[in-house]
Order: sequence, then C-alpha cells, then structure tokens
Amino acid sequence: MRTGLPALCPQPPHRLPAAAAARCCACLSEDEYLRKLDAVSLPAGFRVGVCGFEFSPVELGGSANAVMNLTLIALDEPTPDYAAVFTRNRFPGAPVKVGRRRLAAAAPLQAVVVNNKISNVCSAGDGEADSEAVCSGAADALGLDGGAAAVLPLSTGVIGWRLPVDRMIEALPEAAAALSAGSALPAARSIMTTDRFPKLRSVSACGGTLVGFAKGAGMIEPDMATMLAFVLTDVAVPREVMQPMLRRAADASFNAASVDADQSTSDSLLCLSSRRVRGGESGGLSAAECDEFERALTTLCERLAEDVVRNGEGTTHVIRVRVSRAPSWELARGVGKAVVNSPLFKSAVAGNDPNVGRLVSAVGSYLGRTASELCLDDCSMKMGGRRIFARGAFDIDSAAEDAIHKHLLDARLSDADGASLPYPPHERCVEIEVDLGAGDAGCTVHGSDLTHEYVSINADYRS
Amino acid sequence: MRTGLPALCPQPPHRLPAAAAARCCACLSEDEYLRKLDAVSLPAGFRVGVCGFEFSPVELGGSANAVMNLTLIALDEPTPDYAAVFTRNRFPGAPVKVGRRRLAAAAPLQAVVVNNKISNVCSAGDGEADSEAVCSGAADALGLDGGAAAVLPLSTGVIGWRLPVDRMIEALPEAAAALSAGSALPAARSIMTTDRFPKLRSVSACGGTLVGFAKGAGMIEPDMATMLAFVLTDVAVPREVMQPMLRRAADASFNAASVDADQSTSDSLLCLSSRRVRGGESGGLSAAECDEFERALTTLCERLAEDVVRNGEGTTHVIRVRVSRAPSWELARGVGKAVVNSPLFKSAVAGNDPNVGRLVSAVGSYLGRTASELCLDDCSMKMGGRRIFARGAFDIDSAAEDAIHKHLLDARLSDADGASLPYPPHERCVEIEVDLGAGDAGCTVHGSDLTHEYVSINADYRS
Repeated sequence: MRTGLPALCPQPPHRLPAAAAARCCACLSEDEYLRKLDAVSLPAGFRVGVCGFEFSPVELGGSANAVMNLTLIALDEPTPDYAAVFTRNRFPGAPVKVGRRRLAAAAPLQAVVVNNKISNVCSAGDGEADSEAVCSGAADALGLDGGAAAVLPLSTGVIGWRLPVDRMIEALPEAAAALSAGSALPAARSIMTTDRFPKLRSVSACGGTLVGFAKGAGMIEPDMATMLAFVLTDVAVPREVMQPMLRRAADASFNAASVDADQSTSDSLLCLSSRRVRGGESGGLSAAECDEFERALTTLCERLAEDVVRNGEGTTHVIRVRVSRAPSWELARGVGKAVVNSPLFKSAVAGNDPNVGRLVSAVGSYLGRTASELCLDDCSMKMGGRRIFARGAFDIDSAAEDAIHKHLLDARLSDADGASLPYPPHERCVEIEVDLGAGDAGCTVHGSDLTHEYVSINADYRS
Repeated sequence: MRTGLPALCPQPPHRLPAAAAARCCACLSEDEYLRKLDAVSLPAGFRVGVCGFEFSPVELGGSANAVMNLTLIALDEPTPDYAAVFTRNRFPGAPVKVGRRRLAAAAPLQAVVVNNKISNVCSAGDGEADSEAVCSGAADALGLDGGAAAVLPLSTGVIGWRLPVDRMIEALPEAAAALSAGSALPAARSIMTTDRFPKLRSVSACGGTLVGFAKGAGMIEPDMATMLAFVLTDVAVPREVMQPMLRRAADASFNAASVDADQSTSDSLLCLSSRRVRGGESGGLSAAECDEFERALTTLCERLAEDVVRNGEGTTHVIRVRVSRAPSWELARGVGKAVVNSPLFKSAVAGNDPNVGRLVSAVGSYLGRTASELCLDDCSMKMGGRRIFARGAFDIDSAAEDAIHKHLLDARLSDADGASLPYPPHERCVEIEVDLGAGDAGCTVHGSDLTHEYVSINADYRS
C-alpha cells in the first residue's frame, strides 16, 4: 500500500531557522499543493466533469444571485459494485432518501451527480422528485441506458431551499461535455462549498487504486450542511463485500471524527468500483486481497476524515485521542469523542493551556454516564507523550506542564502570529493517550479545538 | 407555595422608552438585588458562619498567595433527615467520596463545611484523609458530640491541588464564631468562586420554608470544578422519603440544564432538614404534604438550575427547550440537551440568527442515534412561539424569520450594546418547543448560548 499524498512537514516552519525553513519542502505553497493534488489521477474506468452557473434562489425572492457547481462522476460501464453509508439524522436530505432507494434496489449505477449550494433538505416542495428529476437530466446528458435509476444524487448547502431543477438540467450537458479521465482534482474542488482547501487522497491496493475526496468544514453559511466523501476504485470488489467494509471503514474514520459534534442531514460516504482490476482468484478477490483492500480503504477514509477535521471551521489545533485497553471499541470511541467534544477542553487547547484537569473530568464524566461499573484502578493518561495521570491522581509537575504547553504550541496549525499556514494541512496533532487498563479494544478519534473564529463563523451573521 | 424571589423584568429595559425604563423596578441595581436576597432568612434550626483567609498553595511553590472562603452550615440539633445527589463523574473529588460514606452510614448530621478555591480532586496526597481532618476541625470548632462523622465536607476549585488543611483548621473557629441564624445570603456569597452573582431562592411549603443556594458558572479558572447546591428546610421530611424526592428534583432541574455539557468532578446537591416543622399527621407528613413538599423542592431546584445557566460563562442568551409528546422523559430530556449542547445552534443563538435548520438538524441527529424507529410524521417545532417546522418540512417565511430574529434580540441578557445587564438575572429565554407527536412524556431543558466570551474565559490564559 503506497500513499499518494505529499509528504508532510514534521515541524512548524516558523520554529525552524531560516535556512532549514527554506528546505522544508513539505510546507507547500498553495500552487505547489494544488499541482501535487492535480497529479492524482482517477482510477481506470472513471471520468469527471464539472460546471458552474448562476441562478436566483426563489427563497431570495428572485432578487439575489447565487452560484452552484455541478459535478458529474461517470463510469465507462454500469457497475453493480457500489456501497454507501448515510447520515443517521432523522431529518435526512431528499438525496439521502433517493440514495437509500438506489442501494436497496441494487440496480447498476453509472453516474453520480453532485451539487453544492443547496442541500435539498426539508424544503417546502417535493425534494425527492426534484432529486429524481436531476438524475433524469444527468442520465439524458450522459446518454445512459439505465435512466435516472443509474444515477445517484448528492447535495450539500442551505437547508430548506428548493433545488433550481430546471437550471440544473440546462447546465448538465456542459458538465457532461467536460468529462475527462485525467485528474481527480476538478471533482474534489467542484464539490467544495466553504472548504479552505480540497481534500484528495489516494492509495494503492490489489494492483489497483483507491482515490478518495471529501468536502466538509462545518457549517459556514447559515443552514449549510456538512460532509460528502467519495471513494473511487478500479479494483473489482463485489457489493456484498464492499458494503460491510465501507461501514467498518466509516466507523474507524469519519464516525470517529468530530469538528463540533453536529451530524448533518446530508452526510454521505460513497464507494464505487469500475471493476477494471480483477483479483487473483477466478471468482474475484482472495481473502488476503479483501484484507488488503479493506486496509487501504480504511486508511484512505481515516486520512480524509483527518483532512476534514484539519479544515474544520476555525480549527487551530487537531486533537488526536488514542484510547487503548478499553472493554469495547464503542466505549473507546465514546471516551475519545467525549474528550474532543468537551467545550472546556477544546477551549483550553485553543489557548495552548495544558489543562489536564478538564481532560480527566471529560473522561470521568463520560464513563460515569455509560460504564459506571468499570474498574479504573489501572487507568492512565498522557498528553504530548508525557504521563499526566495514573492511579486516580495527577502526576504532573511544572516541568511536565511546560513540556505540554510547548507541545500545544508546536501542534498549532497557525504560525506564531496566529495566521493560518499555507497549503497543505500538516499532520500536526495534539496527542492524547487514554489507557483505560480494562480490556483490549481501542479507537483513535480526531477532533478540533474551539476558537473565537468558530464562534464568529457560526454566530456573526446578523448581530 | 410562595416564591421568595424578586419579581423579574418582563422585557429588556433598553427597548422601553426612558420613562417606562425608570419605572421598571424589577431591573434592580446590584445593591437592590443584594438587599432583596439579604432578606431571605434561613429556616428555623439553621445557622451559617463564614470566614476567609490567605494561604500559599504548595503547588505554587509557596511564592504566591491565594484566598479561600470557609462556610459553615450548622444545625441546632443533629438530624437524621438529609439527602444528597452527587456527580456521576468516575473521577469524583475526595469530598464526594466522604459524602457518599456519610450518606451510607446514615449517622446524624449536624454541620456542613464548604471551601472554595481548591476542589480536592485527584490530588497527589490523601484527599479523603484531608477532608476528614477538616470535618474533625469543624466538629471541634462547633463542639459537636458526633465528631467528624456529624460533618459533611464539600469543596470546589482547582483540580489536583491539596487542601491547606492546617490553615483551614486554624480558621474554622472564626467561622464558628460568626454563626448566625439570620440571612442566608452570607452562605450563598461565601461559596461563590467566579460566579457573577449569588444564587439564592426560597419557597414555602407544608407550613415551613425551603431555602436553596448554589454556586457554579462553568469552569473559569483552569481546572475549576463546578457546581454545589444546598437546600435547607425546617420541614421534617424523613430521609427515606427525602432521598428519592431529591433525586427526582435533581433530574428535573440540574440534570436538565447545561452550560457546556461538561459534568464536573465535584457536582453535589444536598438537602438538610432541621425538623422544626412537623406534618399534620402523627407519624409525619401526609401523602398530600409529601406531594406539596416535593413540588416545592422541584420548583426551587428548577429555579436554582436556571440561575446557574443564566450565570454561565459568557452566556448572553438562556435557551429553554420544552419537549412534549415524547415516548419517555429520558428521550425528551435527550432531545432538549441535544439542542442546547449543539455548538452550531448555540453559536447561532449568540449571533441572534434564527437558524432553524440547525435546530432541526440537532433534533434529527440525536433521534437518529437513539430512537431511529420513532415515527416523526407528527413532529413539529416552534421558536419564539412561531411554528417553524411540521410534517418533515420547514414552515417559515421572511416575516416569521424576522419575528424570530426579534425574539432572539429581546431574549438577550445584555443591553443593545452587548454590555451585561445589572442584577438581577432576568427570566428572559429563547423559547424552543419540540413536539415529537409520539407519546405523552415531556421535559424542559435550559442551556446557554456559545459566545466569544466563553471561548475567551476558557482559552485565553496562556496564549
């Protein structure tokens, strides 16, 4: 398994002497970063085409203009091998409902049509009919035999507004005309809304490639819904194998990440195979190849999930919590999420404050609600690699506190003056380890800190 | 049942014409507010005494001074009738452990000793022995026959530090000498740490009085633990009746309130009876009197809980979510808490943004995790009294949006320039109603918005 992402800067460039900083090639400029991503090719059998257009949302009374991007992902041949994981939100968007129908019908799929700007969630009209009409338009533009049923729709954007279906159908031929088998970057950029940078990763497995891209940064505009992620592969993985694999990969990655604990009405993760690369066995992938593919899929999703957190609204630190020796994976994930969702701990991290009391309190609060019978005599915790808590008491002196403070400063995604660093996102993390001493399960969770910028982005529209 | 709290201002004073504002007597100055609280007398059979002293925490290397308040609550006679509800945090403070022992031993209680500044949680020393030593000192200062076992200790403050036991024992005679049966205000003020105002309420029931006071505003200092609440009453309620009543009252009040979703290691609610007022029946309270007492206790706790939220760190809006027609109280509370704990919705409220999409998304996200089989066809929601969502779609036009925006402005705890209003806290709330249409249970939850000030308080120590 080889990763197709630029190597990452091991330490903050502003902390290096000038000469070393100049050699720190992983701290790419925006141009360099995008050139690197542009070199990530689509797997065999896929093409993408994008276009954008202006329209007047009816909800704005026809007075104001908005811009919508359309992204078409087309397969050269229809495929039965696809899988999807959707939001569990009880008020899901219409495209999620249509997507669930496609998955249940198991009809071959030949295209995905994605729009940003409007999520088609809880709109006053018939959102599902709107999504189906767009699928029909895409099938026509692509000349698909399967019609609308061969197209899966996905939307993110404002909740409550109606899709401009006619304008979308008018524009789809332009996206179809732009279809190209080259770089995956146009698709990764076109699905963005308020994302700060495109999120695109690739890995190799089983003689083929998995290319993943995602959008999602929180909810920047009022009512903006959150995350879409795509994995395209040329490796032939049967749908009955792919679906449970994708569920497990989502659990280990997107479902173990949190910017702000809010699950959107549109969250969707889709995996599509063009079936160009066959496994070593006549009937398909061998068991070893299945394992290899699943490892690659999981790694890809983990990296995309981390990219989403790193691109989180106002994020200045990514927090990585490794929970080990837990009685179950679910409990380990719960502990990790309790830490990255604690507003008190998130705020402390934003302020580079080594506030270990809040860390212990967040863990203890979660365990008290869910596992009050668990023996915690052997529980210990580390921050920045330093032991801070063991046997029910703190184990921290002022030297340890200074070291953790420095770890927090080093892990910042901004430079010393608080300015955002250029592309690419760095693999800097605030490292937390929680050893529950009570089992052999574990989970790694990623989250972001809580900053003034987060509040500004999400509060300061009208005040 | 008569409430002993100042009447509250029905609308923001800055929105009234000058003449009306001058007549708006409920908007008390700090002095007026404190005079009003000072008139709240302790129930018969109780006295309180407070003192403060300077000390050098060993953790600060003996170089810096800190101030600690001691509060003694003494009963004229030992009482078997007391009840307590403690944090479920799995790393509770030593005083919580000692308190649980007192409750289990059921020995008569004659005093409570409270300190602020240090919470005695996870300290490197023997925290329980420290708390017991302080109880011993209090028993000596008060000349109690029951010794340390007749004293219940409570502490809030920095996590991880050791209590200055010797200095506390030296100071206790001063608090004992100050014991007075008059106002409850000295106790309500002495237990404060970073609270903006004292939280003190009283209600009458069964021919006696219930006086409640609480501290808690979030965690302003690094590692500051959160909430203590006390209910003192002269009504004789047997302990076996009082404990389940207090648990139910806590569930309906403190356990349905959230500033920042973090449960501290010290949270404690204590109810003590001096048994001066006997019920109408020879054996104690009649069933009707028990009901009357429980209603009064619940009301008192609900108001104190709302006071705590209103005093929350950086709070500029209190959010009240009334969830109705739920299949269970637990689910109703979960929905309410999901709304007041959603960082996105909280930020929108802070910005006076009528962001109904985030409200619906928060409700749907919670229900998806916990009650995915629930039928939501009849679910509807209101904000500021206006219907905004029904039958799976938004029901909101620009006039409704303007009205909700105005509701948010009117509910601000600050004036038009964003400055905090003077005492007392107002009963202004952002009113949310969620009708699940799927049962007959309900719950009302209070929470606060998420503001720049919250992040500043909790992040900006060291950055």
